[in-house]
Amino acid sequence: MLDKSHSDAIWHRINQKTKPLGSLGKLERVAHQLALIQSQNKRDAVTNITINKPTVIVFAGDHGIAREGVSIAPQEVTQQMVKNFLAGGAAVNCFCRANDVEMLVVDAGIVEPVKSDSAQLISQRLGKSTENFAQQPAMTKEQVDQGLEFGEKIVKRVIDSGSNLIMFGEMGIGNTSSAAAILAALSRRSVEKCVGYGTGINDQQIRLKRRLVQHGVNRCRGQKPLEILRQVGGFEITQMVGAFLAAEKHQTPVIVDGFIATAAAYVAAKIQPSCREYMLFAHQSHESGHKFMLQELAATPLFDLSLRLGEGTGAVLAVPMIKATVEFYNHMASFEQAGVEM
Amino acid sequence: MLDKSHSDAIWHRINQKTKPLGSLGKLERVAHQLALIQSQNKRDAVTNITINKPTVIVFAGDHGIAREGVSIAPQEVTQQMVKNFLAGGAAVNCFCRANDVEMLVVDAGIVEPVKSDSAQLISQRLGKSTENFAQQPAMTKEQVDQGLEFGEKIVKRVIDSGSNLIMFGEMGIGNTSSAAAILAALSRRSVEKCVGYGTGINDQQIRLKRRLVQHGVNRCRGQKPLEILRQVGGFEITQMVGAFLAAEKHQTPVIVDGFIATAAAYVAAKIQPSCREYMLFAHQSHESGHKFMLQELAATPLFDLSLRLGEGTGAVLAVPMIKATVEFYNHMASFEQAGVEM
Repeated sequence: MLDKSHSDAIWHRINQKTKPLGSLGKLERVAHQLALIQSQNKRDAVTNITINKPTVIVFAGDHGIAREGVSIAPQEVTQQMVKNFLAGGAAVNCFCRANDVEMLVVDAGIVEPVKSDSAQLISQRLGKSTENFAQQPAMTKEQVDQGLEFGEKIVKRVIDSGSNLIMFGEMGIGNTSSAAAILAALSRRSVEKCVGYGTGINDQQIRLKRRLVQHGVNRCRGQKPLEILRQVGGFEITQMVGAFLAAEKHQTPVIVDGFIATAAAYVAAKIQPSCREYMLFAHQSHESGHKFMLQELAATPLFDLSLRLGEGTGAVLAVPMIKATVEFYNHMASFEQAGVEM
Repeated sequence: MLDKSHSDAIWHRINQKTKPLGSLGKLERVAHQLALIQSQNKRDAVTNITINKPTVIVFAGDHGIAREGVSIAPQEVTQQMVKNFLAGGAAVNCFCRANDVEMLVVDAGIVEPVKSDSAQLISQRLGKSTENFAQQPAMTKEQVDQGLEFGEKIVKRVIDSGSNLIMFGEMGIGNTSSAAAILAALSRRSVEKCVGYGTGINDQQIRLKRRLVQHGVNRCRGQKPLEILRQVGGFEITQMVGAFLAAEKHQTPVIVDGFIATAAAYVAAKIQPSCREYMLFAHQSHESGHKFMLQELAATPLFDLSLRLGEGTGAVLAVPMIKATVEFYNHMASFEQAGVEM
């Protein structure tokens, strides 16, 4: 549970800045949340928020359901994109370079592991792909438990290395099906509302996708979050759930990316509601079900760029806004300091 | 007129990147626009977009109508905030520092000039404040002509100093009244729709503000853009109009900020429609009339943070997104380069 004893003092500081009350909109709420997190268990609220080594962890995993043709890309693309991440060629690499964000890639269980000595690659494999959740549970209970542990472990490692702002991205052909199934099963919304076009399938494919997702949802709607995760989740989603829970444990703010990452955030918040208080929401993605997840989490994202790519791209794009927010909280003049009389 | 002969080649390059088609949403359109601007009159489309010395020019001017009490702040605050800009204490200063953006402040005509040797301050005064546009034309024709020239001059100076990405911000107590009057007169929308709460006035003040704006609009609705500008505009708005026109002349992209800056962009685009092609739109502001201006300009802004501060804050926040966009255009791998088969 986030200690909120300095909440009023933090608002007071924000409200004394040389600007009309509330005029920095959503950024004021971000400043308040970050200052609150960093002021916990301190005698006074922090004067300065610090941001060190923002880091995105990209979890990759394969999905049994991908073999049904529910994506625009074949399953092999998961591995090809992991290689692309390690070579620095993907969108998330570009955004990390532009925004000075560090990046790690976790093999959470892709079909064929990548041969690489890269220090960026961490092998935390839960298997060679999940099972096809349209037909049977995606994972065993042991895989879920191990996945949560793996997620926690990598977060601890990143925080121990000096990062105090983290993001999670993902790669996994077929994983919008998993995320949509989680949304439908957890929120009891219709599968039709929860399933979208992913990275760009056609109308025939979306009908197939809805039918297959419905099979998985029928097995677990109304069950506990971890059972829903086991039935229709994915290796990368499970490790992200563990990672979100670990962010709270280590009192570290985390920027939530798009549809898949938010599905993991949603499961984590159902397991441990207080972990929501460490989440900042970067963007509203183009995927139609994302808005429902954000509603469930009472989240207002910073921007909507019509992104539908995953990888943590949206979260990484939010980092400069967070840094700008920190700069205003730390160094913007008060009315008194500036001699402004409003 | 922007030369579009490389448009298809630029889209082809974007579409070959390792991502689902269109999945970077608005950022793809930004990349296309910037590459188009920098590919003009070249034999081939540019391989790399370059961004040098992004610079925000903050224009400050006082408004006769401010003496009627249409703002939360007294007129003196314009000058106080100019001093705050020069001392580095305002929101826009913080965002510039966080995002590595340079900043100049133009005194376009505030009541009392600031005594300062700062190299950041440029005096381009058109007077000691406009006239009260509820009662008479805000400016003379000579002031408008001189203001357009001043706006062009400062843009040329910034570009000559090496900048190829510019932004305009503003400060002027009372200037949401001017911007709303411009919107109502140019778009023929009702004054009620165009006038908003500015930086936070109450219901009584907004009724007064609407009545006063209506007086000005009655004198010029349906007239030519420059006459509307003269009747109800401001010194800072006029110089920004000249600045937007100069951006096209120097083939330089410009990031458009909130309600006041967009009013100037709108006037500029009415005078010279092709200057619209050099404009990137940062954000949808909290001010209610801003969405109508954006509609008139067929603009989709990058984000909505509920900002209502001006100063160029929203435009400066967009700079890292532009840099991330440039990095993906320049260095993201193609399917062929990465061996990804989608």
